[in-house]
Amino acid sequence: MESMMIYMPIAMALLGLIYMGVKRSWVMKQDAGDGKMKEISDHIYEGALAFLSAEYRLLAIFVVIVSVLLAIVSFVVPTTHWLIVIAFIFGAIFSAFAGNVGMKIATKTNVRTTQAARTSLPNALKISFGGGTVMGLGVAGLAVLGLTAFFIFFFHFFMDGAWTNTMDMTIVLETLAGFSLGAESIALFARVGGGIYTKAADVGADLVGKVEAGIPEDDPRNPATIADNVGDNVGDVAGMGADLFGSYVATVLAAMVLGNYVIKDMGGSITDAFGGIGPILLPMAIAGVGIIISIIGTLLVKISSNDAKEAQVMGALNKGNWTSIILVAIACFGLCTWMLPDTMRMEFFGEGLQEISSMRVFYATLVGLVVGAVISSVTEYYTGLGKSPILKIVQQSSTGAGTNIIAGLATGMISTFPSVLLFAGAIWASYAFAGFYGVALAASAMMATTAMQLAIDAFGPISDNAGGIAEMSEQEPIVRERTDILDSVGNTTAATGKGFAIASAALTSLALFAAYVTFTGIDGINIFKAPVLAMLFVGGMVPVVFSALAMNAVGKAAMEMVQEVRRQFRDIPGIMEGTGKPEYDKCVAISTEASLKQMILPGLLTIGFPLVIAFVPLLFGMDSLAIAEMLGGYMAGVTVSGVLWAIFQNNAGGAWDNAKKSFEAGVEINGEMTYKGSDAHKAAVTGDTVGDPFKDTSGPSMNILIKLTCLIGLVIAPILGGHTEDGLAIVTEEGTTVAIMQDGSIKETREVEKEIRKEIREENGQFVGEVIITTDDNGERTEAVKTFKGTEAEVRAQVDAFVNSMKE
Amino acid sequence: MESMMIYMPIAMALLGLIYMGVKRSWVMKQDAGDGKMKEISDHIYEGALAFLSAEYRLLAIFVVIVSVLLAIVSFVVPTTHWLIVIAFIFGAIFSAFAGNVGMKIATKTNVRTTQAARTSLPNALKISFGGGTVMGLGVAGLAVLGLTAFFIFFFHFFMDGAWTNTMDMTIVLETLAGFSLGAESIALFARVGGGIYTKAADVGADLVGKVEAGIPEDDPRNPATIADNVGDNVGDVAGMGADLFGSYVATVLAAMVLGNYVIKDMGGSITDAFGGIGPILLPMAIAGVGIIISIIGTLLVKISSNDAKEAQVMGALNKGNWTSIILVAIACFGLCTWMLPDTMRMEFFGEGLQEISSMRVFYATLVGLVVGAVISSVTEYYTGLGKSPILKIVQQSSTGAGTNIIAGLATGMISTFPSVLLFAGAIWASYAFAGFYGVALAASAMMATTAMQLAIDAFGPISDNAGGIAEMSEQEPIVRERTDILDSVGNTTAATGKGFAIASAALTSLALFAAYVTFTGIDGINIFKAPVLAMLFVGGMVPVVFSALAMNAVGKAAMEMVQEVRRQFRDIPGIMEGTGKPEYDKCVAISTEASLKQMILPGLLTIGFPLVIAFVPLLFGMDSLAIAEMLGGYMAGVTVSGVLWAIFQNNAGGAWDNAKKSFEAGVEINGEMTYKGSDAHKAAVTGDTVGDPFKDTSGPSMNILIKLTCLIGLVIAPILGGHTEDGLAIVTEEGTTVAIMQDGSIKETREVEKEIRKEIREENGQFVGEVIITTDDNGERTEAVKTFKGTEAEVRAQVDAFVNSMKE
Repeated sequence: MESMMIYMPIAMALLGLIYMGVKRSWVMKQDAGDGKMKEISDHIYEGALAFLSAEYRLLAIFVVIVSVLLAIVSFVVPTTHWLIVIAFIFGAIFSAFAGNVGMKIATKTNVRTTQAARTSLPNALKISFGGGTVMGLGVAGLAVLGLTAFFIFFFHFFMDGAWTNTMDMTIVLETLAGFSLGAESIALFARVGGGIYTKAADVGADLVGKVEAGIPEDDPRNPATIADNVGDNVGDVAGMGADLFGSYVATVLAAMVLGNYVIKDMGGSITDAFGGIGPILLPMAIAGVGIIISIIGTLLVKISSNDAKEAQVMGALNKGNWTSIILVAIACFGLCTWMLPDTMRMEFFGEGLQEISSMRVFYATLVGLVVGAVISSVTEYYTGLGKSPILKIVQQSSTGAGTNIIAGLATGMISTFPSVLLFAGAIWASYAFAGFYGVALAASAMMATTAMQLAIDAFGPISDNAGGIAEMSEQEPIVRERTDILDSVGNTTAATGKGFAIASAALTSLALFAAYVTFTGIDGINIFKAPVLAMLFVGGMVPVVFSALAMNAVGKAAMEMVQEVRRQFRDIPGIMEGTGKPEYDKCVAISTEASLKQMILPGLLTIGFPLVIAFVPLLFGMDSLAIAEMLGGYMAGVTVSGVLWAIFQNNAGGAWDNAKKSFEAGVEINGEMTYKGSDAHKAAVTGDTVGDPFKDTSGPSMNILIKLTCLIGLVIAPILGGHTEDGLAIVTEEGTTVAIMQDGSIKETREVEKEIRKEIREENGQFVGEVIITTDDNGERTEAVKTFKGTEAEVRAQVDAFVNSMKE
Repeated sequence: MESMMIYMPIAMALLGLIYMGVKRSWVMKQDAGDGKMKEISDHIYEGALAFLSAEYRLLAIFVVIVSVLLAIVSFVVPTTHWLIVIAFIFGAIFSAFAGNVGMKIATKTNVRTTQAARTSLPNALKISFGGGTVMGLGVAGLAVLGLTAFFIFFFHFFMDGAWTNTMDMTIVLETLAGFSLGAESIALFARVGGGIYTKAADVGADLVGKVEAGIPEDDPRNPATIADNVGDNVGDVAGMGADLFGSYVATVLAAMVLGNYVIKDMGGSITDAFGGIGPILLPMAIAGVGIIISIIGTLLVKISSNDAKEAQVMGALNKGNWTSIILVAIACFGLCTWMLPDTMRMEFFGEGLQEISSMRVFYATLVGLVVGAVISSVTEYYTGLGKSPILKIVQQSSTGAGTNIIAGLATGMISTFPSVLLFAGAIWASYAFAGFYGVALAASAMMATTAMQLAIDAFGPISDNAGGIAEMSEQEPIVRERTDILDSVGNTTAATGKGFAIASAALTSLALFAAYVTFTGIDGINIFKAPVLAMLFVGGMVPVVFSALAMNAVGKAAMEMVQEVRRQFRDIPGIMEGTGKPEYDKCVAISTEASLKQMILPGLLTIGFPLVIAFVPLLFGMDSLAIAEMLGGYMAGVTVSGVLWAIFQNNAGGAWDNAKKSFEAGVEINGEMTYKGSDAHKAAVTGDTVGDPFKDTSGPSMNILIKLTCLIGLVIAPILGGHTEDGLAIVTEEGTTVAIMQDGSIKETREVEKEIRKEIREENGQFVGEVIITTDDNGERTEAVKTFKGTEAEVRAQVDAFVNSMKE
């Protein structure tokens, strides 16, 4: 029986998308300002679109190559269905489309925010946050819509929309993993490419404009200034959006996979009001409800006073954010108790089956919400203006760039302490509450407010852009002051948003990791085996090398930009006097080309390593389960090291940035007030230069690296050992359980009580036969069902043949 | 039967120490120069001794506390013997003594090298390398002497000097682990304290002297200059010595533990010409022969031409080094084939017992030698003058400190790629050849030339000091030029030495890790268990936080030094004119106190974390085997992350250093020759400031961190699950193997063929009774022996009672 509940998340997603449409037209209807402002805004819009279309052309090639490879795999490997290719392509398209929607609205909202800031700060916030809301709902809505729609499609395609057995559901979910893989692949390139773009433009604009030519930031005479503003959108809006789109999809998918294993642990089928798939539907339902909750949250974000400062704006954002987190907690309570059986049996590795109540699953979701909130505070502490770590970096700036850098590095490194303890505690607690299903649901609950998080994240770069437009179109200072208030809050939310992104990536990866182990059917990942340990080392190394490649890429792209800006200053007559017009588009083109070229090597590293580890030993005839364990070791290495390097780089970068910003208001060093332009400030600027690629390129890329690595593992899983655990456990006449493997081999296990039932019935015009084998192994009941379909005669023959085969 | 072979390593160690004595008197007999030189040298000598005695006072307290704790543990835990306390104390004393010997000779050799450099470069090399040789042989000789002597003592104490069974030998080796723990604890503080000392003095001297006062390096007017020269000895001589002393002992110990398990896998006893303990003696024998080989190697290091340049000096060192490596390979061939059974049976995790020939063990030792050689080349590539990574950093210096820092960081990060692939390949290959015994022997072979490595390492800081003395005593420029040649080569060997140290630490940790798993008797470390995975994360975080603490410590200590130097420049009249005498001792005292104070927190982190992980859950009643697995996850996390951060920090630091040095000879940037004093050079100096604590404090500390963590695990192991694997496997009359555990509980296993033999004989005036149970489980033969000693009547009664107990 199919429950209507399966359509709920789609309905919610559509509601979210409709609201997004309404909000979008409202934003678009706002005044876009005068001619000069419009012109600048159009430059940014076109630059951003130019990047996107260049990126999509490149990605189209990538998608075609991967699709062909996947098609070959699905042709060769019987357990991989060709529909995974379709899912992959759609995952990529949905992710790209979400990025496109977000970027378009962001580049349309910026100028409207500037215009609003001419008269009112509350209005400016309303518009910029409105743009962010459109972005957030677009990403979240498309993610839930795409994933849910494909799930329903595959559920009908492989299982006729009704529960058969966990093995069939495994095939559904394995095929669905293609959607997630597609989304995450796009995210990799969007994050890395966007990160390189934004920093190349930023560094290029600053180095020649601010330092060499001595003109202010965002000065219209600087040829790289448009590219710089495009970069904010490309990196912080589209990159972050693709990142969270990928996390969102991967988290829900992993939770669904683990939900299927809960059903398996409970005997292969359960009876509930949701067609027997309650534990699988739950993460989708949480995601669906989360969209509506996010809408409520965004409605609360407003200020009334035109004289409001950062604190009030931050307060408004916090109000919306905390409300939505609390609402998610309430929703999780309702959904967990409603959709799950009162008690479930779950396999705890090495400890056997345990009875887990639905309340414990709810507790696990609370763990996720707490982690999401606490990690933001931790990030805020290590990177926030006026906090002790930043003040220390400021002090160390007085003795030069060297000590400033050491202090910043040390701050980033120290910040791994509370963050990792928090993650470790979260893994432990959510697992203790409800096994790996609990870990996955903790991640799902945390990700439920993705739309809200993205709205908060995206409003930052929109405000940053609005400030840039104000500067370039030479508005009165009050306009820039207002946008600066928004921008400053945006900087804080950008840092905490990165904390949220890495926390979600960490939990998602663990859930994917757990799904991987269950998919491959290996009995854990034992690092006491030397090859597994070796791969743990290799995995640990990859994020470090990836970061280095990303940083070098920024350096190379920035160098090209520097040369172009220098050339324009030299060759275009009257450019410094404002009479000659800079060739903005050339700078945009350089950033675009360089970032796309430079993202290829890190991308190959990410995708290539797991493939080499999986397939090279396979070619040498190594046992596929041993390979699966090695690949698991690699995944664990990437995850542990990636999380560490993400925290280190994000927080060091954020800390340097705010240490530099501290000088704007003046700081006290050794009893003296020190301001912009001092030697200490120059040292802090150097620190920020190092921090820029850390926090905007390599650091945030770690999220995608670890998620994508685990997803590739998940997609490879069926090739390596798929379904060995899913062999039908059947019982011979001698009373011994026999596990028949996918490949037809037989694995004998121990004596149990058994019962075999045959059931044949007519359903929608065709006959369905089922052989149901119930075993009772010292109270551990397992039910295995083998289903046949066809005409009555066919089905009867098949059922009898199967029962006879068991008796042999 | 006891073989004389057991005394061979002691004899070799004594030979090495005698040679050291001879070499030492030769060095001391050399001309120590005129009054001024002697005075400066005495200052350095006294400063170094002052640090050492202050350090030893602090460490004495530490040793007492840990001894009391160990005594309590040995009192409470039946499987831990109180003699471990004695071993621990002696390990600490030996390590401290070795450091003392090395530091004394180094601070006596420096001035003699200066004096020799006045007339002859070959002589200067002969003397400085002679001092290094004394240091190297002192460390290696004491390590082998101490470890071997304690082994023989415990072997007689617990086993009467003859093979009984693997369980008794396990107790011998567990007690011996105390010696290693003592040595490694001292190493931690020597490395970290020395690292903080040397960099605090260096930064302090440079920042005020060179930058603020504008006087050259090593100028006698600078109050911190003596502290700076003391620092070279404290950090690079004593710290490195303690590090390698610890590695040496830990490696041999781990190989002995795994040798014992080889005997266990072969049925619990073997018959060979070495009293049945050939596989256990082999690593000691390799270490012993390695001392003699190192002496031969040092004899080859000489140059003849007074006009020799760096290349010739490097060539002389390489000749000695390569010769000793080749000789070790030959010795390993001889020893492996002579001391090991032709074929052994070894348990390969998850693959069962395999037949391994002694030749395969030899191949494993070759893997170790190759890794030692290749890692040096890799390090040389990423940090060597004139190599492409350094040239890139130099280029990036032209755009400022920021880009220089990014390039240096990226170089360090990228360098993990070949290094980790090398280690991963080494783990895999040596394991494939001969299991974890192979991994441990690979490390042993690599460490066999420790004396030679240390001689090469120690000669660098001696030459550095000699140059400082030349400067301070205002010698003719030719003297400084000659010492600079030696110093420059010393900088390269320092970088490659760090590569060697981290490679040895990595392999040693793996061997310790393997020993840990076998000691605790857990069946591997499965990171699919959430608590184990959580601990893997926590372990990964510790090296990062440790590095941050070490870097911050340098910052704080350097700040104190800066203030003191500024005070002296201000308060001492005539100091800048050379008429007022700087108070060198105050600067020495500040460095000493600050470094000792600052090393406490990182030390607590290192020691505290594994204790908390082991004992807190134990207090909460958690299953001790589950805890053992968690601790194993923690150890793996520390090792993987520690190796990565060590490579990253050492190589980034080395690269910045040489990028800065490149400017001394001039470099071509964008077609223009650029020299010292240029803006690009200033940027490179900033990079070097960041690199200093990386390469001299936090980077090298990683080695100790990972080794000490694994050693603490090893010492805790018996408490957590010791000997569960060592229960006697005996066979009842029903034909079922029964494993009787240490605590008397019985664990039933499966049906096997069995044979029980009783054997009673007279030996050295007392009766020895043995019950030998041989089982054959589908071809897997296991022999378990239970031994009784006493009068004939006692023995007969005990043997019969035991056989009867088995039949019940």
